[in-house]
Amino acid sequence: MTQRESIVRESFSRQGFMKTLGAEISVLDHGQVEIRVGYRPTLTQQNGFIHAGVLTSILDSACGYAAMSVGPEKHDVLSVEFKVNLLAPAKGERFVARAAVKRAGKNLTVCTADAFAIQNGQEKVVATMLATMMNISPKH
Amino acid sequence: MTQRESIVRESFSRQGFMKTLGAEISVLDHGQVEIRVGYRPTLTQQNGFIHAGVLTSILDSACGYAAMSVGPEKHDVLSVEFKVNLLAPAKGERFVARAAVKRAGKNLTVCTADAFAIQNGQEKVVATMLATMMNISPKH
Amino acid sequence: MTQRESIVRESFSRQGFMKTLGAEISVLDHGQVEIRVGYRPTLTQQNGFIHAGVLTSILDSACGYAAMSVGPEKHDVLSVEFKVNLLAPAKGERFVARAAVKRAGKNLTVCTADAFAIQNGQEKVVATMLATMMNISPKH
Amino acid sequence: MTQRESIVRESFSRQGFMKTLGAEISVLDHGQVEIRVGYRPTLTQQNGFIHAGVLTSILDSACGYAAMSVGPEKHDVLSVEFKVNLLAPAKGERFVARAAVKRAGKNLTVCTADAFAIQNGQEKVVATMLATMMNISPKH
Repeated sequence: MTQRESIVRESFSRQGFMKTLGAEISVLDHGQVEIRVGYRPTLTQQNGFIHAGVLTSILDSACGYAAMSVGPEKHDVLSVEFKVNLLAPAKGERFVARAAVKRAGKNLTVCTADAFAIQNGQEKVVATMLATMMNISPKH
Repeated sequence: MTQRESIVRESFSRQGFMKTLGAEISVLDHGQVEIRVGYRPTLTQQNGFIHAGVLTSILDSACGYAAMSVGPEKHDVLSVEFKVNLLAPAKGERFVARAAVKRAGKNLTVCTADAFAIQNGQEKVVATMLATMMNISPKH
Repeated sequence: MTQRESIVRESFSRQGFMKTLGAEISVLDHGQVEIRVGYRPTLTQQNGFIHAGVLTSILDSACGYAAMSVGPEKHDVLSVEFKVNLLAPAKGERFVARAAVKRAGKNLTVCTADAFAIQNGQEKVVATMLATMMNISPKH
Repeated sequence: MTQRESIVRESFSRQGFMKTLGAEISVLDHGQVEIRVGYRPTLTQQNGFIHAGVLTSILDSACGYAAMSVGPEKHDVLSVEFKVNLLAPAKGERFVARAAVKRAGKNLTVCTADAFAIQNGQEKVVATMLATMMNISPKH
């Protein structure tokens, strides 16, 4: 585990909300991050599908850590903004958000991410995000 | 309580995720909906502030129910897409999302919503959403 | 005319594309900017309405100058990103984009803007923008 | 030229604004459309780069025609909304917007598109769009 990777995993472990969702980082590469959650009745909207807010949460975290994985050392990352399109009902056993860096700048990093529902071993895209992240220099 | 209002409240009560967040509808008017959550360590990001995904979840639900409150009778509402700008760290005791209908069409309704952090009785805007909702005719 | 105002007007005058559109700044206040265009057949989409790209152009410029009007002295402003919802066909004699600053930060400023069609003296909202602008320090 | 292709080209030819920009369709496939413009001083922002509104206009038109290319026969397409991230200064001799359909639904189609600047034969991505298009049934 590289130093960068351990910083990302340590940051993720401090996110109380990711624990509440039961979310886990399943891939952590340079510029690419994957976060997974399993279906739980506590994460649903009114029709029993996974709530758009849950998908957005893992898409956002995946984008943030993808940005952090290519950003300056020891910088934190904040979400400036994101847009999400919901593409299909989030119906499945597990859900995965896959983020990739589109362009990394000195201060701002633009990421794209897709969320997939997994059912009977089949993946189906259910949401997509386009996000802007900001590098925050460490406090001294 | 009007029939429309009871339909919205019944739909909200079926959202497992809103229970997980501890969210409540605090205002429900024609074209205007307010949803509140209190601070909980289970809803935080890595710095102890409320996660952007939590704010997005209540902004999205508030937009959805605002759209439903002006839409055709007995129609459900789905989120097509939304964009969120995070404006300030979500630091406070309570958080409120206030949604209003910007334009209601036959199929699509556009809503805006702001999220505020409340601390020592002071409100501060921390996020804003621009969202597109779709009316879904009831299944037969 | 204040110094800030003259900087905005000088910048606007250097925008070849604003001339091509026949666009003019009609209001320029602290945190609030209005830009107008008249109907021209050269600005239309396939049904004879004003092209979404024209509305976006004046919404974007209005947001940029609204951000500049509250930003640090002698800084330029660049668009980081924007989202536009088209709310109604852009049918009218004239069109006006009205931008306001939602939140001004040190580096980033978030603006909202509405575009209106004016016909027979009546205004109708036809598009809305939520945008992020960045302050750029002057080159030395 | 298929019937679908000729409908797209006929619609494009009715767009006065595309003529004003000097825009041309360079690729027109099932679910994929490319639109090009050359550099002109009439299309610039204050620093001499191509205006974000120009890029947005060709990105939007490319998304619209990509949606039309996979949509129901004889339907028109309207832009519901789009989000654009500006990734780098639009500096070049020519500019190309490439759109692809992300998901086609009965009523709504979600498209992604990138805009590239071409200079000395090198392409560089300068903007990206995530857009929602709506199929409009022909008037009777």
